[in-house]
Order: sequence, then C-alpha cells, then structure tokens
Amino acid sequence: MQAPLVLDPDRLFPVDPATRTVARELYESVRTLPIISPHGHVDPRMLLDDPAFPNPSELFIRYDHYVTRVLHAAGVDLTALGVPTRDGSETAAVSPRTVWRTFCEHWPHYAGTASGYWLQDTLVSQFGISVEPSAESADTIYDAIQRRLDDPDFRPRALLDRFRIDFLATTDDPLDDLAAHRSLAADPSLRTRVAPTFRPDPYIDPNNPGFANAVQRIAEWGGFAADDFGSYRDALADRRRYFVEHGAVSADHGVLQPFTEDLPPAEAEALFRRVVAGTADAEERTRFAAVMLFEMARMSVEDGLVMTVHPGVVRNHHAPTFDRFGPDMGHDVPTATRYVEPLRPLLDRFGTNPEFHLVLFTVDETTFSREIAPLAGFYPSVYIGAPWWFLDAPDAVQRFRAAVTETAGFYRGSGFIDDTRAFLSIPARHDMSRRIDAAYLARLVGEGRVSRSLAERIIRDLVATVPKQVFKL
Amino acid sequence: MQAPLVLDPDRLFPVDPATRTVARELYESVRTLPIISPHGHVDPRMLLDDPAFPNPSELFIRYDHYVTRVLHAAGVDLTALGVPTRDGSETAAVSPRTVWRTFCEHWPHYAGTASGYWLQDTLVSQFGISVEPSAESADTIYDAIQRRLDDPDFRPRALLDRFRIDFLATTDDPLDDLAAHRSLAADPSLRTRVAPTFRPDPYIDPNNPGFANAVQRIAEWGGFAADDFGSYRDALADRRRYFVEHGAVSADHGVLQPFTEDLPPAEAEALFRRVVAGTADAEERTRFAAVMLFEMARMSVEDGLVMTVHPGVVRNHHAPTFDRFGPDMGHDVPTATRYVEPLRPLLDRFGTNPEFHLVLFTVDETTFSREIAPLAGFYPSVYIGAPWWFLDAPDAVQRFRAAVTETAGFYRGSGFIDDTRAFLSIPARHDMSRRIDAAYLARLVGEGRVSRSLAERIIRDLVATVPKQVFKL
Amino acid sequence: MQAPLVLDPDRLFPVDPATRTVARELYESVRTLPIISPHGHVDPRMLLDDPAFPNPSELFIRYDHYVTRVLHAAGVDLTALGVPTRDGSETAAVSPRTVWRTFCEHWPHYAGTASGYWLQDTLVSQFGISVEPSAESADTIYDAIQRRLDDPDFRPRALLDRFRIDFLATTDDPLDDLAAHRSLAADPSLRTRVAPTFRPDPYIDPNNPGFANAVQRIAEWGGFAADDFGSYRDALADRRRYFVEHGAVSADHGVLQPFTEDLPPAEAEALFRRVVAGTADAEERTRFAAVMLFEMARMSVEDGLVMTVHPGVVRNHHAPTFDRFGPDMGHDVPTATRYVEPLRPLLDRFGTNPEFHLVLFTVDETTFSREIAPLAGFYPSVYIGAPWWFLDAPDAVQRFRAAVTETAGFYRGSGFIDDTRAFLSIPARHDMSRRIDAAYLARLVGEGRVSRSLAERIIRDLVATVPKQVFKL
Repeated sequence: MQAPLVLDPDRLFPVDPATRTVARELYESVRTLPIISPHGHVDPRMLLDDPAFPNPSELFIRYDHYVTRVLHAAGVDLTALGVPTRDGSETAAVSPRTVWRTFCEHWPHYAGTASGYWLQDTLVSQFGISVEPSAESADTIYDAIQRRLDDPDFRPRALLDRFRIDFLATTDDPLDDLAAHRSLAADPSLRTRVAPTFRPDPYIDPNNPGFANAVQRIAEWGGFAADDFGSYRDALADRRRYFVEHGAVSADHGVLQPFTEDLPPAEAEALFRRVVAGTADAEERTRFAAVMLFEMARMSVEDGLVMTVHPGVVRNHHAPTFDRFGPDMGHDVPTATRYVEPLRPLLDRFGTNPEFHLVLFTVDETTFSREIAPLAGFYPSVYIGAPWWFLDAPDAVQRFRAAVTETAGFYRGSGFIDDTRAFLSIPARHDMSRRIDAAYLARLVGEGRVSRSLAERIIRDLVATVPKQVFKL
Repeated sequence: MQAPLVLDPDRLFPVDPATRTVARELYESVRTLPIISPHGHVDPRMLLDDPAFPNPSELFIRYDHYVTRVLHAAGVDLTALGVPTRDGSETAAVSPRTVWRTFCEHWPHYAGTASGYWLQDTLVSQFGISVEPSAESADTIYDAIQRRLDDPDFRPRALLDRFRIDFLATTDDPLDDLAAHRSLAADPSLRTRVAPTFRPDPYIDPNNPGFANAVQRIAEWGGFAADDFGSYRDALADRRRYFVEHGAVSADHGVLQPFTEDLPPAEAEALFRRVVAGTADAEERTRFAAVMLFEMARMSVEDGLVMTVHPGVVRNHHAPTFDRFGPDMGHDVPTATRYVEPLRPLLDRFGTNPEFHLVLFTVDETTFSREIAPLAGFYPSVYIGAPWWFLDAPDAVQRFRAAVTETAGFYRGSGFIDDTRAFLSIPARHDMSRRIDAAYLARLVGEGRVSRSLAERIIRDLVATVPKQVFKL
Repeated sequence: MQAPLVLDPDRLFPVDPATRTVARELYESVRTLPIISPHGHVDPRMLLDDPAFPNPSELFIRYDHYVTRVLHAAGVDLTALGVPTRDGSETAAVSPRTVWRTFCEHWPHYAGTASGYWLQDTLVSQFGISVEPSAESADTIYDAIQRRLDDPDFRPRALLDRFRIDFLATTDDPLDDLAAHRSLAADPSLRTRVAPTFRPDPYIDPNNPGFANAVQRIAEWGGFAADDFGSYRDALADRRRYFVEHGAVSADHGVLQPFTEDLPPAEAEALFRRVVAGTADAEERTRFAAVMLFEMARMSVEDGLVMTVHPGVVRNHHAPTFDRFGPDMGHDVPTATRYVEPLRPLLDRFGTNPEFHLVLFTVDETTFSREIAPLAGFYPSVYIGAPWWFLDAPDAVQRFRAAVTETAGFYRGSGFIDDTRAFLSIPARHDMSRRIDAAYLARLVGEGRVSRSLAERIIRDLVATVPKQVFKL
C-alpha cells in the first residue's frame, strides 16, 4: 500500500497543546492576508505571456537548483535531470517522466529539508496529490499534475490571482529595457503590482566574471569611453532612475563581503581606470567594489531605492560543474560574513538618514545576534533581512526569531522575503513564515513575555505593515 | 479599552505543564534568596546621598542607552528623549512627560526584547502599573510612577534593603578616591556590602581614546615621568591595593580582543615609551594592550583581585552620534571574538594558579561552546561569564546554558551578573536568571538527565554558592 | 539517606507527552539493532588479550581525559587522580579507591555534561548501581563495580558480544604491523569485525611535533633517504594498501585547518626537502600539510579508503601541563574552523568522484549550517560527520540535527560515531544517539513535517544503512 501524503492543518505549530492553540489562532488571523513579495526571481515575461507550465519536471525540478542539488548529492548526474550542459554536447535524452521518477524515488532525501517542506505543501494544496512520492507512485502523480497543468486555470496569471499576491518584485539587469514590466503595468486586468529590481552586481564588482563585459555594455549604451568613471557613475544613476520610473522600489546587491569605502572622487577615478584596464590587483578590485557599494548607498539616498544586500556566498564552488553547466547549479556555498566593520563607512555617512533603507541579509546565522540585530537596534536605516537561502526553513527561522528579537524587537525586520525562482512555491513559503511567526509568538505568550493582544497586533504588522514600511510601498 | 499589563507568575517557565511544575518548584526554592551583584554600574554616590528619583523619564529612559536605542532605531532623535548634546547646543526643551509619551507610544517595539522584559516586570512589581503603556495610558502611568517616586520609601537606600541585595559592586576609575565607598562602609545602617571595582581600560589600552590623558593623570598622581614604565606599573599596582583596601574584589577589563603577551621588561619598557610618545603604530599599540592585560593577570595573582574580561565590543560605531552626544549612546556593537589563542600566554602562566580567578564574558555567542566552556572545563582559574549585554535575555540565556553545560557543567560559571545602570531593574534581572535556570534544570529533570534532588542542590548553588566562590566573597 | 541513581526509560525524549510517545516508539524500533562503530580509539590488543579491567578508577577515570578534565577544572591535580607525570617524578602514591572517592565527591560537577550522561547510564545499566555517587556512597559503589570486574563475564570480549557490536574500527599508526588485527581476524570466535584505521598525522603535517621522527621512521622502514619525496609518498601509499589488506575502511586526519593544495610534483618535492631540512618557515610547513592532505585524497580515490577529517582542535593548550604529563590531558581546545575555501582545491578535483567519500567533522558548530551541510548538500562525496568531542552530547546533537537537516536532509550524515577511548561507554553513546534521533524525528512528526511512516524508515536507515554506505561496509 502506498503511504498517504497529507498536510497537517497544524503543521509547524508548537507541539504543546495549549501553545498550539494560541499559535493556531494567531495564524488564522493572518492566514488569508495578501502576499507582499518584495524580492524574488520570477520572470516578468512569464506573467506577460502566460504560458502553460509544460510538465511536472520542468515545473518543479529542472530549473530549481535547490531541488536538483539534493539529487546531485545523492549521486544523480545533472544531465539525468534534464539539465543541459553549456555546450549542449552531453544533454541526455532524458524524458520529463524519467526525471520525475528519479525525483520520486529519492523522496526520503527531501524529508526535513526546506525544499521538501514546500514541495509537500504544493503537491497537496495546489495539485491535490494524496500519495507520498515513490518509485511506485511516480507515474500516477506525474499524470495528476500534468492534468492540472493542462487546465487554463493553472496558467501563471490565474495563479497570481489565486495566490492573492498584491506586490511582486522581479530581479533585473540594469540595462534591461523593462518592456515586460511596462506591458504588465499597462494591463488593467493585472491586479498585482509587478515591479522590477535594480541588480547591478556585474557592473560594480570587478571580482564578478561579467564585470568587463558589463562595463563595456553600459559604456556602449551611454556612448562614453569604458574607463570614464564620471560617465559610468552617471549612467548607473540614470539606469536607477529608469527603474524608479518603471516602479522599482529597491536595488539589490550580491557581494562576497559587504565592504564599503568613501574614496575621494579623484582616487576612485584612478582606481576605476586600473580596474577597467585589467591592471588592478585583487586588493584593488575588492576595494573598487567597496567604493561602488558606498556609491550605491549614496544613490539610494538620492533616488529612494531601498538598498538590499545579500552577501556571504561563494559562488560556483565546484569549477568543473560550473564549466560544464554554468552558474546556479546548487554549489553556491555560504562563508563567514562580517557586517560591523565593513559597513561602518557607509553607516557613518547614511546610517541615520531618514531617506535611507538598508536591508541586510545573511547566510551566516552567527551574525544575527552578533552583528545584524545590534546594528538594526540602533540605526533607523538598517532592517534585518528575513532568513535567506539555506536559512529559509522552519527551524532556521525559529532560530532567527530567537536570535534577533531580544535585541531588536519585532519591528526592525524586513518582513518575509521568498526570494524564489519557484513561482508555485510562493504561497507555501509565505504560509510557512506566518506559521513560524505564530509559533514563536505563541511561545512568548505562553511564557508570559508578550500579551495575547500585543501578539495579535504584532503578527498582523509583520505580515501587512512592516514590509510596506521597509520597502516604501 | 486599555490592554491590561500583568505579570504571569509562571513567566519564562517551559510551556509543557509537567515541566513547568518542576520549574516552578525549583524557582520557589531560590526566589527570595539575597541578591549578589558582583559587577554593575550603579553610582555609589546615589547610595550615599539617597536622593529621590526625579521623574519616570529620568528614571527609565534618558540615562539608559538600552532603552533609548530602541526608540532611536524607530526614528526618534536622541534629543527628543532629553539626551543632551555634548556642546549643549541642540538640547531640545523636551519635558519628561513628553519623553514618557514617546516611550509609551512605542511600547510594541519593546515586545520580546530584554529591556521590554524587565521594564514590564518593574512597572508591575515595583510601581503597581496595570495597563499596557500606549499613547492613551501614558499620562496615567506617568502620574502613578511619579507618586511612588515622591514617596520616601522609594529612595535608593530603601530599595536596596527591599531588593535584599547582600553584595553590590560598582565600577570605578583607578584614580577614584573611593570616598563614597569609604562613607558607605562606615555607615552601620547600610546592610549591603558595596564594593568598588578597579576598571583600568584607558590606563592600559593605547587604542582607548582616553589613554594619553589617563597616563598623564596617573603620572601626576604618582609624581613620575609619564614615560617611566616601572613607575607606571607600580602606580597601577598601588591603586589596585588601594581598591583592595576599600573592599574591591575584582578588576574589570574591556578590550576589543583579549590578546595577552609576556614581554621581557626591557622590551615592554621600550614599547611603552613609543606608545606614550605617540610614535607606536597600530600593531604596537595593540601589542602594548596585550602586554598590560598579561600584567593585570600577574597583579591579580599577587593582590587577589578577580580578573574579569569583557571583550568584543566595537564602541561608538556611528561617529556622528559619538561626536554629537559622546559615548554610551547605544551604538556599541559586538564583533567576532577569540579567546583560545589570544589568552594562551596568560593561561600558560597563570591558568592553574589557585590564586587566580579569570571570568570571561562574551557578546559573541559562538564562543560559548567553542572556546569559553572548553577553557573553563580544564583551567581551574577560568569561569564562564554570565550572558552579557545583548545576550542578557531569556532565550539567549537558555542558549547559553545549553551551549556550556554539556562541556563544563554547572559549576564553572560566574553566577548571574546584572551589569546594569538601571538600579530598579536589578531584582527583575536576577529573578529572570533564577527563572531561566529553573526552566533549564526542569527540562533536564524531565528528560531524565538530572535527578530532582540534584537539580534542587544545583539551583541553590548557582544563586548562593557559586558567585561567592568565584568572587571570593 | 542516599539519593537513588536511576535511568529514566524515557530519557532524552521530548517532554511533551504526545511527542514523547512517538519518540519512544521510533526508538524502540531501533533500540536493539547492532552497533556499527567506524571510528574510535579502542586498543585492539585489549580485545586480543582480553584482560580483566583492574578496578573502577582505571576503568572510568585515569585514562579518560574527558573525565579527568572535570575534576581538574574543579581544582584537583592530575596526580591526585593517579595520572603519572612524564618523568615519573611526581606520581602520587594514590590508591584507586582514593581516586574513586575524589570522583564521587565531585559527582554534581558532572551533572548535565556529556560524560555525566554516559557515566550514569553505564553505572546503572552495566553495573547495577542504584545510589548517586557521593562521599558517602563512594566505597559501596567501588566495591560493587569491583565485584563485577572480577567476573569473567565482564572481560572485553564478553562485553563486545553483549554490546552487539558488528563493526569496530581502531585508530593506528601507519607503521603499525597490525599484528593484533591479524590475530583478531584469524579468530573464528570473534563475531565482531575489528578493522584498523590509517592515521598518518605526524607523517604528513610538519606542524605536528612528531613529524621529523615519523618521516625518519618511514624512511628507515622503506630504506630510502628521508628527503626523497617520491619514495616517501610511495611508502605512504604502500602502508595504506597494507591497511586495506588488513581490513581498514578509512584513513583519518587531524589537522588544525583543512587546507588543501594541488601543487605540481616538482614544487612539492622542493617544499618537502625544505621541510625535512628544517629550513621551511611556518607558512611553508602549513602549505606542505595542505599538499599532503590533497595527496591523501588522491590516494583515497585510488585505494578506496574513506577519508575522514577531524580539524579545528588546538592541541595541548597549556604548555606546563603538556610538559608535565604529555598529550591527551584534557586541554585540547576547539578553534574557529573553515571548510568552504580550504577544501576547494580538493573538492574541485575529487568532489564528484564516485569512489571518493569524505567525512567532515567539526568542533565549531557554526560550520554545520554555514559550511558542512551546504557542501554535503551538493557534493556526493561529502558526508557530515556526527557531532564530535565537545559536541557529542544531547543538546548539541539536537542543535546539529536542526542545523544540518533543513539543508542536507537525513541521508548526508556519517551515521553516529562514538570516537571513544572508554570501551564501556560505547552502548550508552549509541543509545544516546538513537534516542536523540528519535526525539528529533518525533518533533518533526508532531509538527507535521515528516510522516510517521517516513520517520520509521529514516531512523532505521540512520542506524543500519547510512553508516554502511558511508564507510563502504
């Protein structure tokens, strides 16, 4: 007999019955509130073209490196999951159904993981699946999902409505023409506000493999010499304004360490020339990235874009996999990250500027209690980014709440950020966040630390008020 | 209707009913034991002069950077809280009542925080407040507190008795004449033993902004040339003895990293001359601080003062706020701290000396299980400092217990340290500690790891025996 | 009246009654499964000669630095525990019974510790002790244990059977002739498979105090010049093959930081000559260790030995104690450890090689969620070492599970590793691990995150399947 797949209505709540009751009631009070998603990786074109999702494997597996990495760690080659090699030479003729079977056979490997959580939620709540994935059930589940996907009611736009998403930010290249966003904004039938996000990493960090190319492209776009620092900086400011005009609310920055430096313009200019000429050494390249991160903060004060920083990830750790498949293949790995010293120049200048909002994310959870919460507990500009990437899972979020709240309270966080490529997982992720917040608050109520009425106010604020304030919505 | 403010008699106990019962009974067995406070920041003059506290805002807000930082992070300028600027130019004419209203309006921002916890406890248990602070209730609460403050029974000395404080250490400059302590010691009506603490930071760390001035002052006091290392060292030893004669039991040291070095006297002397002359570079300055921390340990072995070390805090992170308001304004921020390698020279020399007691505090909680507990689990001189500053809150203390006990047991800790400037918060803080210890022990009893009778012995020792042994009382 | 010593049959299970029931049932399903112990420090000669354990103090205290360190921290000199000094000059004429009394008097110091846990388990379950150790009960307990030790049924071989140990790995010097292992393998009455483990630390790390001597010894063994890199490397490969022929399944490496480097042979050769000649500086010595760790991985791919790495321990922190007593005296202390960058060269080359198994241990628990789990969540070769040394205790293991599972699931761990010198503690340690896994899984079941049937499958796999797969049994 096949094991049933069910969704416990009380999932993620504390096991103690009295505390669970409080958690359930707190959760119920926010369960159906609209979703605000200020940072993520949904393709705006998908919302514009509204295509049907082709099949379960394309939908859930092939493009999601959180899902493929689990199978890869279990010994499955990425080509066996339909992931194409860069040069196309090794692409296995693997059918979506075969990929799905491989996935279902490895279902126990997802138990307890972040991906396993939302996959189970989504399979049950979106697709009505009621048997646990396994070698035996794989085909049945595949067919059941495929039937739904063929239903016009399962296209992206219909889901966007059904998911009650009020605000959805995408992530975009600074030179993107934002045509898709313009079209979406012009469409009166779209009830969700879809906004672009300015993500300039390759344009400002010489350690980024795309730096030379990005600087060349923006110089061509602006019609100036590639090593003209003033024009380069003006062009970035121009592009930011263009994003603002198209509804952007934030600029996002992925860096290895959040170094910042306020360098006199003449020195910055000389440094830029060396960097563009390729004569800068490693230290100078890192220094230029620090100068530009400072510059981005200055521009944020001017144009109002919320500055979000996602540091601490060593990208493409396994060179052979990068060479074979390209980026985003599941071997980006966290590293110890620092905030207090690296951000000091930036915060000295802009930390108490009321126009400035800075959201600090981390994948190094030691920094929650040691650095990020103490900074956010003083600087009105600093917000604690919701647990991200490896930390976006129930226990990690509980640790996050316990680590930051005692220092910074409930009102210095960013609100929940799903940061997802998996469009279908958005409701499950926001639901998880609401359940964990309810669980955490219920414990504080049970321990006599927060009154029941205050807990009700706080959970509502966490879902409905805080993200709007932080992201200036 | 206004929300009630209540104190749950079972606050901080585990939510599981059976475990809660054990916790409650363990707590009851130590609830009324006298308070021993071996490290804090109460002004001895306050206990001598015994003035009435002027008003709720002066009492709770203006002088407590733990409280003001929450409001500052919420966007309230420090001048709006009555904090004067250094030069007096910007002091807002803000009334205490207005400050109090601002505080009450932001009450939800304190929910779940360390300050929120003791504020609630103190408002209810000391002042009988029964409505939650808010814009509506602010004036009523203000008036109710003010009435109590006007009562002679609410002066510091009366409270000292009511709080059952047996021992209270202050923190003092090495050149303090300790006149207040002398008068207090001579007062037979004072039942509390009030002791000074030798705190030489600016005298021994050239990275401290007050170093040059402090060395100058001690040279003048001793009548020797400011760059005479031998006399400088002897003067510090003299002042320590003076403190011992006035009842001091410990010397406290705030350093960025606890580096220590045993440098031959001739080299130390040469280094001191460069430091005093201002020709030492950053590395030499840090090295001199390491030499002096080692020297302080040597003196501790000689004069018996317990050595306490509070490292890992980047002081005055936001330069503009420091320039405007001076130190202790809520922007001291933790940084990653190391103990194992930096303290090795010191422990090599004094680590097994039975005269030597070394209490290691941290604001980097990763060091509890990785460094401090393993050191305290071998060296008889090393004691684990109670969770401090940002970590002095219920969940953090629970994490601390779980992090250190499995390696070092219950008998290698310092006992609870309140380290507070907020005199009125002392009972709530010690009560919190007793509740958390009861909660932790109750869990171990529930999990069959510690017998009930042993748990009763341990909690009593933690409150009544351990601090006396560690601080040689 | 003396306090009773009891073993709660539900020890380590969650206190919530419903969750506890699930934990108990999961635990029962694996309670009696055979023990697989792929890494530890039992002496194979003890299993060959099968001597009686002489007395309680020799059995439990004198040779176990986890036990002596607690007493040392409490102020007891190691000589008072019967530990001989290196030169024999200070050995106190302390009787085993006196040592035992000292231990029993300090019983509360073990409360809540890892050692306290297994001591209590072992005293009750192996020796039938029913009173808590104390000054009063010391002699009675001593005599009761002694009576059991005199029973032939309490010799090592009888215990090995009774403990149901299917596989037991020892830790051995590369030049060990493995005669004891050969004899054990030839003994048809031994039902346990006892395997040696190749542990080459002093042969490959010039920072190891035994390096010069070890290189000399292997050169003599192989009959080549001590600075002949090719022969040195070949000799190590030879010895590994010898271990494989004698049943070894893994090679174990203790390093300060797991640096790895793939250096061209000519450069490695030149570096080796400088290292052997003693002219290499600190950086070069560390670099050579990195080269050899890489080399060990290459050999593991060739000969199939599982590579286990135990980094991050500063050995012999207190020089005077090392000088007096030698190594393994309880003052090895963890230090912050990194994996992501140091292991990159090694993983670039061998990380996806299906022949390669790499088990990463840590005593820096910050690396569980930040480095080790993310690496094991992608690289099929990387397995997460069970919590080790200071982290091998109930709360630490719970933190470990919570830290790694959400990223890497349940199938990327090493399975439980007891790593013990205390032969009698093996059942208590494996039992602890099974209880904690049951407790963790029961919580996930209670929170609706893992189905009951999946939890049953997982706990069985953790005990019976995973260790065999990881260690190629």
